Amino acid sequence: MKTQPLKGMRDLLPREQALRDYIQGQILATYRAAGFQRISTPILEDMENLDKSDGGDNLNLIFKVLKRGDKLEHALASGDEKQLSDMGLRYDLTLPLSRYYAANRNELPSPFKVIQTDRVYRAERPQKGRLREFVQCDIDILGDSSPNAEVELIDVTARALLKIGFTGFTVNINDRRILRAMLEKMGFAADQLDSVCISFDKMDKIGADGVKAELTEKGFAAEAVQALDDFLRAGDFSLDTVAARVDDEALTADLRYVIAASEKVAGGRYGIAYAPSLVRGQGYYTGMVFEVTCPQFSGAVAGGGRYDNMVGKFIGQQVPAVGFSIGFERVCGILLEQGYQIPGAKPKMALLYLKDADFAAVLAKAESLRADYDVTVLPQAKKLGKQFGTLEAAGYNAVAFADNDDVKLLEQKAE
Amino acid sequence: MKTQPLKGMRDLLPREQALRDYIQGQILATYRAAGFQRISTPILEDMENLDKSDGGDNLNLIFKVLKRGDKLEHALASGDEKQLSDMGLRYDLTLPLSRYYAANRNELPSPFKVIQTDRVYRAERPQKGRLREFVQCDIDILGDSSPNAEVELIDVTARALLKIGFTGFTVNINDRRILRAMLEKMGFAADQLDSVCISFDKMDKIGADGVKAELTEKGFAAEAVQALDDFLRAGDFSLDTVAARVDDEALTADLRYVIAASEKVAGGRYGIAYAPSLVRGQGYYTGMVFEVTCPQFSGAVAGGGRYDNMVGKFIGQQVPAVGFSIGFERVCGILLEQGYQIPGAKPKMALLYLKDADFAAVLAKAESLRADYDVTVLPQAKKLGKQFGTLEAAGYNAVAFADNDDVKLLEQKAE
Repeated sequence: MKTQPLKGMRDLLPREQALRDYIQGQILATYRAAGFQRISTPILEDMENLDKSDGGDNLNLIFKVLKRGDKLEHALASGDEKQLSDMGLRYDLTLPLSRYYAANRNELPSPFKVIQTDRVYRAERPQKGRLREFVQCDIDILGDSSPNAEVELIDVTARALLKIGFTGFTVNINDRRILRAMLEKMGFAADQLDSVCISFDKMDKIGADGVKAELTEKGFAAEAVQALDDFLRAGDFSLDTVAARVDDEALTADLRYVIAASEKVAGGRYGIAYAPSLVRGQGYYTGMVFEVTCPQFSGAVAGGGRYDNMVGKFIGQQVPAVGFSIGFERVCGILLEQGYQIPGAKPKMALLYLKDADFAAVLAKAESLRADYDVTVLPQAKKLGKQFGTLEAAGYNAVAFADNDDVKLLEQKAE
Repeated sequence: MKTQPLKGMRDLLPREQALRDYIQGQILATYRAAGFQRISTPILEDMENLDKSDGGDNLNLIFKVLKRGDKLEHALASGDEKQLSDMGLRYDLTLPLSRYYAANRNELPSPFKVIQTDRVYRAERPQKGRLREFVQCDIDILGDSSPNAEVELIDVTARALLKIGFTGFTVNINDRRILRAMLEKMGFAADQLDSVCISFDKMDKIGADGVKAELTEKGFAAEAVQALDDFLRAGDFSLDTVAARVDDEALTADLRYVIAASEKVAGGRYGIAYAPSLVRGQGYYTGMVFEVTCPQFSGAVAGGGRYDNMVGKFIGQQVPAVGFSIGFERVCGILLEQGYQIPGAKPKMALLYLKDADFAAVLAKAESLRADYDVTVLPQAKKLGKQFGTLEAAGYNAVAFADNDDVKLLEQKAE
């Protein structure tokens, strides 16, 4: 039998799990203090729901669950691969939340401020080093069309990141509608914008030359490509400049408001920046999108946006919605690398007992020591000095004995 | 698109989720204080591992994940259904733990006292009202062959149940080896014992007549069936009586020890009982098994046992292991029905703001109030009296205003 976990999935050792539980607790506490309420949904979703969810590339990465019994026989007889499965593992928490809101909206407050933190699945190619099972930590506001919802999500998410020790990060904000309007003004056709955006968003990596080459290769009209190139080379990516190009004051008002209010809320504790090329992968975003970056780490540690059409797919009636998701794996990975220590953890004690001890009395003594320590009962080894060394290495702070009142303190690195 | 969750799976509303998080927190705190460490493993496991795991009936209830791409094409071409999947959703936390221990044992302490609390999956028939996705909450001790491990698990599990408000429960204990030895003495063949045990364990439900009829129908030797029937009708199910029948002092020593020590530890806070017919479903149990019952609820709220051969399947070397699992869904369901209130929850405040408010200032005021309250910011409605009613019904304890210093206290039922 195979001892390793499946590729792209991870076993968590106690130390990492303890860190993750602590970090998740801190994030949840921040969210709850702001009046957000946690819910959960099943990990499996109806395949049709997943297929229709505008999930972009993620739709190609869904793990599908095989039908069973007669249903499977019929599916095999049909010769149609698509019939083999009618449910799949969710690729994010937004589609399940939209379905949940549609199903339970009569029992939920409006606006509904909600927390989800749970596992999601994507059949990424393992050689990319990406996880196939990972945890996302989301907050969403449903039923609020005001840009105050964006400001609130940015505030709460940023405070969660500050609380777990992240500093020096920037919340990058864009509005897809502005980006699309600008690209249309430049001469790109409305149905080509997704492809243009993908190239445009690579500016940081491949430079203006790279973007131009890629767009030309993709076969876009030379005039439009040149207009974008001029914009990139001019190097002025301020919202004022873009707004002037778009020439639609109403379209830029929300973004201006969110940036100004968020800067005021941030008060210099973190950065707020306009990011004209930011798109985010998911097809379901309809307006504002955001992403948190730290200069010292590549890639984003959090991201989100507004998705006003998703709940409507279920109930035929639009419900405004906006969400912000912390990349929990990434955040924990960074903190673990930095040697993060859990503050205020209770000291650990081993209570050693001899082979002929009255074990019920040992357990009672252990319980009496638990006001001050987390206490593990362990058989006393013959070589006590060696056992002390093992316990010290395993992070124990003290050793007590079932048959006397001695307590030996072990040396632990300062926490 | 379908708004309901998949059959046998559940959406959790905020109130239930809050209860579950609190209950899980209390259970985890009890386990951690006793020196147990939490780990986690992927929800997906290799199909071959699952198939060989001695999971009894659960092996027929595994959700299998469909292969993808070329692998799927090859599988379809082979015409062999079994080739369609090479991974499945775990049906419990014991098989993944055994694999985990085999993979990571060099980095784990010995004995390894471990906590798992996570989702598992079984494709139960929905008409039975059983869940297909549910949470188990397990503790296990690996690497300790002493019956003290059983005593410790019973102590810690019982304290977790007491901590969340369960009282009047009984820990029923048996040793499969004793039951099997007694049945063999009665004349049943060794390879028939599983089937005999299933009927025997129905004694409570179908009575001695029912057991006899079922065994006769199954075609067991009349003499053996009669011997069991005599035992059942004699009505003396004490360990002394069974021990006398088995006539093997060594075989009953561990069970006697565990019962005596556990009774001493319990000190009357809960019951400890010998349950001669207790088997538990899983095929992997090798000795002691236990189950927690409450007279006011049918079925068990927790169960477990010793499984000394499971890790050995991975590494070819036996590692003693014993576990105890709290039926988290069942426990939470009972507490929810009883109207359980979370003790010491922070009061909830709504901070209302007018449409033209400075939203950054609103958020700053909310944060300043969070020392005493969980504070949600909400737009102030025109009909303030109606809004107060809505907030009261939603569980808010107080309302504050962004533009003045008034605080209105709302009436909540005593908690």
